[in-house]
Amino acid sequence: MSTDKRPLRADAERNRQAIICAAGSVLAQGGSDVTLEHIADVAGVGVGTIYRRFSSVEELMGVVLEEKMRRYAERTEQAAQQAETEPWVAFREYVMFILEQQATDAAFSDALLSPRAGTDLFRDELSRAFRASVRLVDRAREAGAVRADFDHSDLYMLQHAARGLLRGTQRTAPLAWRRFGEYMLQAFRESGEPLTPPSKIWTRTLAAGQH
Amino acid sequence: MSTDKRPLRADAERNRQAIICAAGSVLAQGGSDVTLEHIADVAGVGVGTIYRRFSSVEELMGVVLEEKMRRYAERTEQAAQQAETEPWVAFREYVMFILEQQATDAAFSDALLSPRAGTDLFRDELSRAFRASVRLVDRAREAGAVRADFDHSDLYMLQHAARGLLRGTQRTAPLAWRRFGEYMLQAFRESGEPLTPPSKIWTRTLAAGQH
Repeated sequence: MSTDKRPLRADAERNRQAIICAAGSVLAQGGSDVTLEHIADVAGVGVGTIYRRFSSVEELMGVVLEEKMRRYAERTEQAAQQAETEPWVAFREYVMFILEQQATDAAFSDALLSPRAGTDLFRDELSRAFRASVRLVDRAREAGAVRADFDHSDLYMLQHAARGLLRGTQRTAPLAWRRFGEYMLQAFRESGEPLTPPSKIWTRTLAAGQH
Repeated sequence: MSTDKRPLRADAERNRQAIICAAGSVLAQGGSDVTLEHIADVAGVGVGTIYRRFSSVEELMGVVLEEKMRRYAERTEQAAQQAETEPWVAFREYVMFILEQQATDAAFSDALLSPRAGTDLFRDELSRAFRASVRLVDRAREAGAVRADFDHSDLYMLQHAARGLLRGTQRTAPLAWRRFGEYMLQAFRESGEPLTPPSKIWTRTLAAGQH
């Protein structure tokens, strides 16, 4: 009997991945048509198959965000690692990666910046990304790749700003976020006039995982 | 009889200004309590006095925004004028002025970036500000005060980004917009790596007064 079950399990696992993948792309588009029926269509499975695994769109969305967050945390750890040998390249590419994530997935972008909505697993992965990004920034600063007064919270400043820019320009200027990122990178890199210091309350709030 | 009426008119005009001023500060705080009753309280006049002049909150709000827009257009023309002799100072102070307006008045900030909502007078003043800001940018670029590839649409990029930043940080980091403005000014000033070009569609849309 157990040999009979294996192909079924593999099939079930493929279905599960197809559902998560379809849900991810539907949610990323931020459309209003986020129903289990629509996701079933995109995944090419029956609605019943989805209902057997997920009780609601919210539960499915939670799993999708966990999966994205896991990959995001991994990418952040890679950047921190790369910064040991190539601090500027690691920092620059990571900043553009963050913005690209925001540009391509509004739902994930929102969750990143208001993570109280996430599951426990989501929050664990978010903390992992947070710690790795602190290492990345520390290393880039020590190496002189970014200005001495660059603050870790500036990454959140960037993300909040990018969110506003994306909301306002996604239709008329879909690449404005790139130009914006390039401007910001230049500002982060070169020393200049003294800056208004970052808010201490904010820095503490971020460190406590409340973004 | 006419001498009797003059003090009444002056009184009525004072009331009108008090109402517009009170409405301006109530709207700026972006509170949900935007009722004619609340505005009457702040203005220190009776609700009846407001009703005699304005048929609804919307009409009053229209007048408030017109008045703000008129001052905004004037400030922009001043900046364009100042740029003739002090291009960098004029540009820098104007950029910080824009951000400060956004930081202190969410309703006006929203109207600036989606001006279809405004009255005809609002749109006329917005066009005046637009033309003056084009002159300011042209002059700053010619004088080498900003980088050669700085584009007028970058001012809108900045405002959309600032809106997102303000929404996300107004409580935890109320001065983050200043630090952000300082970073952006540095990026606008110094030449660096080539930038992703601005969207041509967007540039044309802005010029047509549809932001």
